[in-house]
Amino acid sequence: MSKEKGFVTEITPQSEDFSRWYIDVIRKAELMDYSPVRGCIVFRPDGYELWENIQRELDRRFKETGHRNAYFPVFIPESFFQKEKEHVEGFNPELPWVTEAGGEKLEERLAIRPTSETMFGHMYAKWIKSYRDLPVLINQWANVVRWEKRTLPFLRTSEFLWQEGHTAHENEEDARAETMRMLEIYRDFIENFLAIPVIAGQKTPSEKFAGAVNTYSVEAMTKDGRAVQAGTSHYLGTKFAEAFDIQYLDRNNQLQYVHTTSWGVSTRLIGSLIMVHGDDRGLVLPPKVAPTQVIMVPVGPPKTREQVIAKVDELYAQLKAAGVRVRVDDRDDVSPGWKFNEYEMRGVPLRIELGPRDMENGVVVLAPRVGGEKRTVPQDKLVEEVIKALDEIHNTMFELAKKFREEHSRSADTLDELKAFMEESRGFVEAGWCGSEACERQVKDETGATSRNIPFEPSSRKTKCLVCGEEAVHTVVFARAY
Amino acid sequence: MSKEKGFVTEITPQSEDFSRWYIDVIRKAELMDYSPVRGCIVFRPDGYELWENIQRELDRRFKETGHRNAYFPVFIPESFFQKEKEHVEGFNPELPWVTEAGGEKLEERLAIRPTSETMFGHMYAKWIKSYRDLPVLINQWANVVRWEKRTLPFLRTSEFLWQEGHTAHENEEDARAETMRMLEIYRDFIENFLAIPVIAGQKTPSEKFAGAVNTYSVEAMTKDGRAVQAGTSHYLGTKFAEAFDIQYLDRNNQLQYVHTTSWGVSTRLIGSLIMVHGDDRGLVLPPKVAPTQVIMVPVGPPKTREQVIAKVDELYAQLKAAGVRVRVDDRDDVSPGWKFNEYEMRGVPLRIELGPRDMENGVVVLAPRVGGEKRTVPQDKLVEEVIKALDEIHNTMFELAKKFREEHSRSADTLDELKAFMEESRGFVEAGWCGSEACERQVKDETGATSRNIPFEPSSRKTKCLVCGEEAVHTVVFARAY
Repeated sequence: MSKEKGFVTEITPQSEDFSRWYIDVIRKAELMDYSPVRGCIVFRPDGYELWENIQRELDRRFKETGHRNAYFPVFIPESFFQKEKEHVEGFNPELPWVTEAGGEKLEERLAIRPTSETMFGHMYAKWIKSYRDLPVLINQWANVVRWEKRTLPFLRTSEFLWQEGHTAHENEEDARAETMRMLEIYRDFIENFLAIPVIAGQKTPSEKFAGAVNTYSVEAMTKDGRAVQAGTSHYLGTKFAEAFDIQYLDRNNQLQYVHTTSWGVSTRLIGSLIMVHGDDRGLVLPPKVAPTQVIMVPVGPPKTREQVIAKVDELYAQLKAAGVRVRVDDRDDVSPGWKFNEYEMRGVPLRIELGPRDMENGVVVLAPRVGGEKRTVPQDKLVEEVIKALDEIHNTMFELAKKFREEHSRSADTLDELKAFMEESRGFVEAGWCGSEACERQVKDETGATSRNIPFEPSSRKTKCLVCGEEAVHTVVFARAY
Repeated sequence: MSKEKGFVTEITPQSEDFSRWYIDVIRKAELMDYSPVRGCIVFRPDGYELWENIQRELDRRFKETGHRNAYFPVFIPESFFQKEKEHVEGFNPELPWVTEAGGEKLEERLAIRPTSETMFGHMYAKWIKSYRDLPVLINQWANVVRWEKRTLPFLRTSEFLWQEGHTAHENEEDARAETMRMLEIYRDFIENFLAIPVIAGQKTPSEKFAGAVNTYSVEAMTKDGRAVQAGTSHYLGTKFAEAFDIQYLDRNNQLQYVHTTSWGVSTRLIGSLIMVHGDDRGLVLPPKVAPTQVIMVPVGPPKTREQVIAKVDELYAQLKAAGVRVRVDDRDDVSPGWKFNEYEMRGVPLRIELGPRDMENGVVVLAPRVGGEKRTVPQDKLVEEVIKALDEIHNTMFELAKKFREEHSRSADTLDELKAFMEESRGFVEAGWCGSEACERQVKDETGATSRNIPFEPSSRKTKCLVCGEEAVHTVVFARAY
């Protein structure tokens, strides 16, 4: 595409208006564009490639743990939603309905899937007959639709892309183990691949998935101190098994309901990583997910250009052979300075500069996007130095995000304390909670913060509910959330 | 899943009822199941993995030729279809419509995409301003929906999976070159990866894509002598550019319409490869696309079992390390004979047997699914022998399919000749055609055969139209088609 489109010429500073900053960055970096359909975006190639890299890595992890992919219909008959009461109440307000097709009115309306527990449930009932058929471990990569009132590119769009795992097991123990296994895969992936520190924990009943017994989540903090739910894993008990009659003959020849799970992450991970890592210069992409990890820019006067480019090409080939995602920008109609800004804005983790003086000295200049100054390294050690630098950038990004989260987290003993913190700043607040929905709702009504989850590893154990002062059953993380 | 579901116990012979054979095979091999939504199937893991392997290889080829992936909305506003007259006429009868969403009636109905020329067109008009922005080479992997009256699993389903490439170019020459480049990628992929010989050619006007200037296709022959369109590539001229106002400033600073192309293959490739290669014992999967390329089965009495399995595991590790998709079936509750039948039915290209006598002799038995008898090979050459055997199986499959097609192809000078052939047999008929739609329709009405394409390399050049006897403008392949 063209170098500069003009429609976004400057990026609004984060401190001035974080939402504007976000929209400026994703449009200027050509990650997305608005579509003519309300709440739906176009994932442009530079945005979609982030999703491809996320997919490839997660898919590998799913398969390593015995899951296989399948594909189920996008249409779900209306009657399916009626079968699980909580499920229909949760999703009904967000469904788009196909009422006509092939020139005729349909006898039964078809929803566009917002999630597929019901369709998987219907098919599993046909396939599962005996304990020998269990577990069933299937994942699906698909588009889903939830007709959201307020949308935000990547983070909340009417149509989005995701994966949804649906598994069936002989008993509660196995299903709960699967639920936690997948949450741990998400935590590990998000922290060690996307460099985003997350808080893993259990959702409160009011925040759980419609139809789940328990929902678990990993929650990240964006640079405006809000929470973003990055992945969820649900233990569904026998609720969907009972709704769809998924029974099997157990080892004692008795009919039993299966225990099911579901778990998913979506393209909101793209929005999350941008909001967690980005800065006033633009995107900052974690090296492991960055489409371009290294950009090489030749510098120096025209007379040395040919010689410099020859060397750049030689080094490029070495990096490429080592599996580094590297590109060269040797255009001569834009200045090196323009290129530096451009690739910083696009979040390329590492820049390599090479000029005539570097040629003489047998070195190149490495300029990391974050965490450290430019430095020179010997050309004959380039591959190992680049791999080391990318590792360092990943670690730096994770540490910076973690430090930011720590600086924007505190604990509160009372609702007033929480309120004061939310007014002066934003962030995560740990507080005791008695377990009543009324107290949880009061926090939301008075501060805008919702319970994010009950962390597995809270930094402190609270003894009293921040609202009513009664004994605390849980320590909860509260935050304003995307 | 369970070993035998019982619902398909025997496979109907192809000669008895080819359609029944097809359904028996795909259900018994657990490639698909019917869904509760009319015309939509569930792609079960063994079926979906074929698609994953097709995707991986095609995606690599698309990217090698400079294309990038993106994702556009599944919803297309009704007004978009009105903008290109032929397009709306072609697709309108097949569209499902979303008329309500989020609890409200929509102001404008939204179609579920049957193809995305219109949505890409709308966005390209925003992105393309100058010749410097061209070419735009974008592909999308997506689900699409066409509300078909008669459906057949994989080959014609209401919802299916596909890729759709959409490109924009400065001029006709570039766009035509792209159209042919992609057709050639399809031809090469289908022949050299799926072992399906195809006839490449141009569609007649009545068979072209709704809105195209020219459509090109690759056509395969199934084992019941029918044609299946395996891939298409379209030169769209400036039709969509005019409909969506995609103009750019050319090198002389003049406003010009871009020339666009589109091209796609779909999950019907799965149906095609089954119908081209399958036999009365079940599936025959081309080695390059087969999820399991090699199945290893230990044989012999219980007392040698442990020792044999140890050797099998050792050889398995060698094959795995060499990149072969290999599995071991060492279950002791089913007989080797049962396993042989099972994996033959599932189309695994190569079986390896190993028993105590083979151990003594330092050999294994290779049993190819097609093209040759069992043979023994030395264990210390197993990897190279297996790779060679898989290559041979691919080549054999291609040659068998080609021979079948040749035996079921002929040329006809008159409609009576064509009709006689279609009555006694099925297959491809090359014949001269004057270019009139009336003559083409008469062939269809009287024989059920439609023009498949105008082959680039016909086996003969016909001089007279088979219907009217006037001068032939083209030599056309006619066949009954899926």
